[in-house]
Amino acid sequence: MINPGDALNIIIEEAKLLSSEEKHILNCLNDVLAEDIYSKDNLPPFDKSAMDGYAIKSEDSVNCSEENIGGFKIKGLIKAGDFCEEVIKAGEAYKIMTGAAVPQGADAVIQIEKVRTEDETLYLSEAVKKDNNIIKLGEEIKIGDLALSKGTVIRPVEVGLLSSLGYEYIKVYRKPTVALIITGDELVDIHSQIQKGKIRNSNEYSLKAMLKNLNCDGLSLGIVPDNKEALKEKMEYALEHADIVLSSGGASVGDYDFVRGILEEIGADIKFTSVAVKPGKPLTFATIKDKLFFALPGNPMAIINDFQEFVRPAIEKMMGKSQIFKEEFPVILADNFRGKAGRQKYLYVHIKKQEGSYYAYKAGSQSSNHLMTMSRANGVVIIPKGCENVQAGECFNGKFIFR
Amino acid sequence: MINPGDALNIIIEEAKLLSSEEKHILNCLNDVLAEDIYSKDNLPPFDKSAMDGYAIKSEDSVNCSEENIGGFKIKGLIKAGDFCEEVIKAGEAYKIMTGAAVPQGADAVIQIEKVRTEDETLYLSEAVKKDNNIIKLGEEIKIGDLALSKGTVIRPVEVGLLSSLGYEYIKVYRKPTVALIITGDELVDIHSQIQKGKIRNSNEYSLKAMLKNLNCDGLSLGIVPDNKEALKEKMEYALEHADIVLSSGGASVGDYDFVRGILEEIGADIKFTSVAVKPGKPLTFATIKDKLFFALPGNPMAIINDFQEFVRPAIEKMMGKSQIFKEEFPVILADNFRGKAGRQKYLYVHIKKQEGSYYAYKAGSQSSNHLMTMSRANGVVIIPKGCENVQAGECFNGKFIFR
Repeated sequence: MINPGDALNIIIEEAKLLSSEEKHILNCLNDVLAEDIYSKDNLPPFDKSAMDGYAIKSEDSVNCSEENIGGFKIKGLIKAGDFCEEVIKAGEAYKIMTGAAVPQGADAVIQIEKVRTEDETLYLSEAVKKDNNIIKLGEEIKIGDLALSKGTVIRPVEVGLLSSLGYEYIKVYRKPTVALIITGDELVDIHSQIQKGKIRNSNEYSLKAMLKNLNCDGLSLGIVPDNKEALKEKMEYALEHADIVLSSGGASVGDYDFVRGILEEIGADIKFTSVAVKPGKPLTFATIKDKLFFALPGNPMAIINDFQEFVRPAIEKMMGKSQIFKEEFPVILADNFRGKAGRQKYLYVHIKKQEGSYYAYKAGSQSSNHLMTMSRANGVVIIPKGCENVQAGECFNGKFIFR
Repeated sequence: MINPGDALNIIIEEAKLLSSEEKHILNCLNDVLAEDIYSKDNLPPFDKSAMDGYAIKSEDSVNCSEENIGGFKIKGLIKAGDFCEEVIKAGEAYKIMTGAAVPQGADAVIQIEKVRTEDETLYLSEAVKKDNNIIKLGEEIKIGDLALSKGTVIRPVEVGLLSSLGYEYIKVYRKPTVALIITGDELVDIHSQIQKGKIRNSNEYSLKAMLKNLNCDGLSLGIVPDNKEALKEKMEYALEHADIVLSSGGASVGDYDFVRGILEEIGADIKFTSVAVKPGKPLTFATIKDKLFFALPGNPMAIINDFQEFVRPAIEKMMGKSQIFKEEFPVILADNFRGKAGRQKYLYVHIKKQEGSYYAYKAGSQSSNHLMTMSRANGVVIIPKGCENVQAGECFNGKFIFR
């Protein structure tokens, strides 16, 4: 039984960055950029008016005041999208709309609210500073500047930035294909009635939903009966067609648990076969060439916990993320929780913020088959291996789940 | 100019819960349940073994000890999925695998690691308590019990729970259809070269990406020229086909900004036309029957800020979410930031946790056209309306963005 920290180190060491692929920017949300993006333009591409107003030469307004309101000849109107070919001369002004290109020769825009016009003449009651209300050419980014570095996670703002720079397709790291093998003669389809001794195949759905949450495709190979030959065939197929293979159930020491034996037969490098965590102890991790194999436990809560703690970080590292661990923070227990020493315990709890601190409330039985408890929980509190029962008022690290 | 809190209250008041629809559970992630879900079964549906071991009558083991190792007749093997029709009798045991149904008459399972067997006989060196290693019928949930209430957000664990209960399709609230109208003669397609006076249409991509981030479909009506008739036609079409209409640009006081005039013509109830926030002041909100219309500003950073602060909460309320505001927390400024009084300012910053506190570092110019700054930011600090320049060391509320 290996410690969870050591288990994670081994997994992370084996999870290698995948190749990159070119995708449309709108299909890249949450992907990781696999190239540096340089600007091919100046942004803005011209001196731009930040306001609706009048473009003038600022030096012309030096003497303007309440008493001396000047008088500029309004030459015309520049709308956003227009380009004025004329060069503005002393004593001239152009009416200009927000976002429009400032005419050549002008170096300031005075807001429409601050002026008075009469016929074709503009009157100012104050001096205007150079560059007033002008967004300068290249102020945001210049040709050749680095806009986004390799490794950046694509969020909506990066989609906006890339489109403003004219990038419609970008290179991002490929996400792993994850094959699912569900074993167990006790399993029936979720739309079936439960017959004697059987339960519904919920693990496949939990796994598919967790993969979908990471925008990963699950390659489901369905329920495989507890039959060594059938299982071996599926495992070999999965290893050929996926980057990561997850099996559910069939990894404890029972007579009918073949996964480990098959892994040995096919020459997998078995790194560990159980981890000192609760729930989720029966977790086997193996590598076969560059493929990762996780034999996950069959208990519904254990499989979700192991996926979140051990599989998710591997997936995120392979797709190029640098922040693969969720932020932990101190959580004060609001209830007592029973436990035994020997394994690191993940208590599924309801975390509430009260007066600036986080408190953990009971969400139900911590038995590893209880999805009801996990469904009532919004977080976990992590109780170290050495601890037994823990009491209200004690403080441990915790984190939120599924967000 | 309305205060942001008042603006939000008006929007939230007008954003009404949409109707529900039936969907496959794997397509419901992040949706909100529109019905109560009751269990149609007991879970587990039988007394289930939590371990690989031997099922016995616990009373038979009362006198077992290191010295008195008893001797039980092993009657057979029960695998997961099997159902044993025999009733166990005094002095008998069944070998049983994890997840298998405990045979009738047995009330305890002793782990395989704790016993010794010889031929068909089981020897125990300790007494076994009643219910040891047995997950009792209905322990997780009983027939008719409430499993999930209306209003629950569907996460992977709820998908797992629903499948274990045999629910493949569920009723969830519909998400709003959101139509996008992008105005501006200055806009060119993102794959175009920028000609004089033009910029690329990045706002449409930012909006589509933000909608996708909420799993909402955007109904894009493309770039509409600054022409009142064309715009009116698009607006009417959008209001007919969508629950929410977003327009970008064209809502300031410029001569070529028609949106507000059209809203009045078509009888919309205009609730406000500007909000005291920076960036994002030129925001118009109107209702037409049960439809919501947001005229968003054209500046790239302003439109994203307004979407996150004012549109997102409306969408989330309409799809049934009860927690529609992001968690704010105290953030200490690590840099000085310049600002004017008069509007609530959203400073786009890099928030770092240091020794248990959050600190905000400059990410670049806060000018409302700078997507580069927003791209370097992972959060905002919210500076109240009355504040001007703020100094390193001062503490304000902040929150993370895009997560």
